[in-house]
Amino acid sequence: MAQQARAVATRQQIVSCAASAFDRFGYYGARVEEIVESARITKGALYFHFGSKEGLAQWISDEQHRIAVTTTDAIAATDAPALEQVVMLCHEIARQTVADPVVRAGIRLTLERGTSAAGGTGPDPYRAWTDGCTRLVRRAIEQGDIADYVSPHVLARHLIGAVTGAQLASRVGTLFADLEHRVDEIWQVLLPGIVPAGRHDRIRSVSTARWCASGV
Amino acid sequence: MAQQARAVATRQQIVSCAASAFDRFGYYGARVEEIVESARITKGALYFHFGSKEGLAQWISDEQHRIAVTTTDAIAATDAPALEQVVMLCHEIARQTVADPVVRAGIRLTLERGTSAAGGTGPDPYRAWTDGCTRLVRRAIEQGDIADYVSPHVLARHLIGAVTGAQLASRVGTLFADLEHRVDEIWQVLLPGIVPAGRHDRIRSVSTARWCASGV
Repeated sequence: MAQQARAVATRQQIVSCAASAFDRFGYYGARVEEIVESARITKGALYFHFGSKEGLAQWISDEQHRIAVTTTDAIAATDAPALEQVVMLCHEIARQTVADPVVRAGIRLTLERGTSAAGGTGPDPYRAWTDGCTRLVRRAIEQGDIADYVSPHVLARHLIGAVTGAQLASRVGTLFADLEHRVDEIWQVLLPGIVPAGRHDRIRSVSTARWCASGV
Repeated sequence: MAQQARAVATRQQIVSCAASAFDRFGYYGARVEEIVESARITKGALYFHFGSKEGLAQWISDEQHRIAVTTTDAIAATDAPALEQVVMLCHEIARQTVADPVVRAGIRLTLERGTSAAGGTGPDPYRAWTDGCTRLVRRAIEQGDIADYVSPHVLARHLIGAVTGAQLASRVGTLFADLEHRVDEIWQVLLPGIVPAGRHDRIRSVSTARWCASGV
């Protein structure tokens, strides 16, 4: 039992240090020697738990996908109207990319795989977010908070793209200090155009919707 | 004279091969040995022209900035209404990030510098585009094609962010095959909300605006 707990702790330690390295230096730049050293484990322990550097990278990509699915489901399960839930999701995606090195590393690794020297396309790190966002937009249209001429999938791709772009610009410009503000700006541009005229009184409160995670 | 032409050709050859390497592997992953080999030059020639790997990376970042400024100015100088010019600029940014390895490498290098291990912030690779776009939006408001409740800077940041995000998702998902379509989608979401009701008949033709570069 104690042995199992120790194994879990070791895995977490490896993942945490590897995520930090992949996030900072990318797949090619991250060195197994440095991950091992910062995690204070042996190379053997890393290979025992993850097989290889590639296996470790794959695990982190998968974990980022799992977190995205779990987050989207959790937000969809709240009592808030669907339009508020879409706003919550965009802010939560932004928050996670700042706060969670596993999320950042997973995105970077998946993007790098998609642009490998072999030239093949890879899995889409934004897929889970885009799918979840599409479902929420569809529900917001049913609830009359988004005009029915809006295409759920097109708006969802727009939102995830805009949040991703905001995150990149915010990272390089202010180390994420202005990211929440930038996501607010995305909604400031969009809401007057997608909320039906009869519901414009909702815009102010919709913009302030935030989700407080509990145990994702 | 022949010697000078040869020097220019050598520099171009180095830049082209280095851009390709930085674009694919990032600053850390790109190896001087491989750049030298693919450019069919000596290591000495590379150091003679650019001083160091860092100098080479800096040159490519600067060149990306220069291209962005030149492109924005050229589009602003056309006879098209400013709203069409904003659409042109978004598509041109997308096109360049597909067609020009120097643009792609410059963005990647600047982003990596912004997230260096030292934790400092770097220059913003989107700055020239955002500034140019802000000017065009301001003019489109003056021309009555964008509603005056829209903030030029906020819309410009939104657009550049959305195009950047679309480009990342398109790269990983389809190797850029659907990028023009994704930029069209960005406008499909935005135009009904930012164009004043009295000008909605312009939306269809505005969406198709494209810029044909000549000698940038």
